[in-house]
Amino acid sequence: MNALKERILREGKNLGNGILKVDNFINHQVDPALMNACGEEFARRFERVGATRILTAEISGIAPALMTGLHMNLPVVYARKTKPITMPDTVYLTVAPSHTKGRLVELIVSPEYLGQGEQVLIIDDFLASGSTIQGLVRLAQAAGSELVGIGALIEKAFEGGRAALEHLNVQIESLACITSMEDNEILFSD
Amino acid sequence: MNALKERILREGKNLGNGILKVDNFINHQVDPALMNACGEEFARRFERVGATRILTAEISGIAPALMTGLHMNLPVVYARKTKPITMPDTVYLTVAPSHTKGRLVELIVSPEYLGQGEQVLIIDDFLASGSTIQGLVRLAQAAGSELVGIGALIEKAFEGGRAALEHLNVQIESLACITSMEDNEILFSD
Repeated sequence: MNALKERILREGKNLGNGILKVDNFINHQVDPALMNACGEEFARRFERVGATRILTAEISGIAPALMTGLHMNLPVVYARKTKPITMPDTVYLTVAPSHTKGRLVELIVSPEYLGQGEQVLIIDDFLASGSTIQGLVRLAQAAGSELVGIGALIEKAFEGGRAALEHLNVQIESLACITSMEDNEILFSD
Repeated sequence: MNALKERILREGKNLGNGILKVDNFINHQVDPALMNACGEEFARRFERVGATRILTAEISGIAPALMTGLHMNLPVVYARKTKPITMPDTVYLTVAPSHTKGRLVELIVSPEYLGQGEQVLIIDDFLASGSTIQGLVRLAQAAGSELVGIGALIEKAFEGGRAALEHLNVQIESLACITSMEDNEILFSD
């Protein structure tokens, strides 16, 4: 998606070690119009997968998932990283290693909002190693839901996340696929 | 706003001790169409305050702030609760007591996205005691920004947040103002 790629080239910062800073429009400051366009594009690409619910992880997945939900007219569930007091005693919980935090984080979903008969579309900000998304997949499986697609705003192809998800046999889409961040450059797949 | 009030009456749960569970459409599962309508309503009410940026706090403030930003064509900054590695070394940080967590939480904003000359509109999910919003106000003040308005989806009037914010002399709006949650009821101000 050109609008996203252009924004990454113009305002993204390659901090080295494969870390891409996009705090200017996704991860700390958010551009609602860009997120809306991304949501519209995800809705177009996943139009035919039959999703009944969108699943993401707090925090940075919320904006793209919400805009995708708006255009697909679907509810959005975001996995919590701490269990709030409003959640039932018994929940689905998995742990996933966090790249940016350097430790395991918990991903928690209430059985109230994920269950049998749901067709789940996962939307997140990054597809890097795929570990967060794999955690979301495990939550959907634990709930007895069917996974129907995976979408990420930005894919870091050199971290192998897509390969780790391919056995799931669902449509995987990224709106900006980065193949290299070496030599302080950012290169896209097309 | 009637759509929000009706939703609270239909799906909100009064858990006692002033705790309102709205996990079905705001705090864990989000209804994008409802959030979009709320954002449109905030945009209408704050049309004339001259905001240049919207400020909220992760996590639950992101959805209403994002939709308000979409309708006002403004960037949204969400205060982080932990400092990510992509943030500069020196940041604005304040602490605020969290009702639902029973402890102090940090609210952190990068000086990259909040500074002098900005007119800040704060949007959050709840206005209860006002402590989170007061934390956001302190961040805006520390950055030299001007506060121009405060909006919350749901106000719990019996917790006194509005009174605690009134000395700021800015427009304060809530889309559903709850005056009582006693006897397992939920009563609105009108």
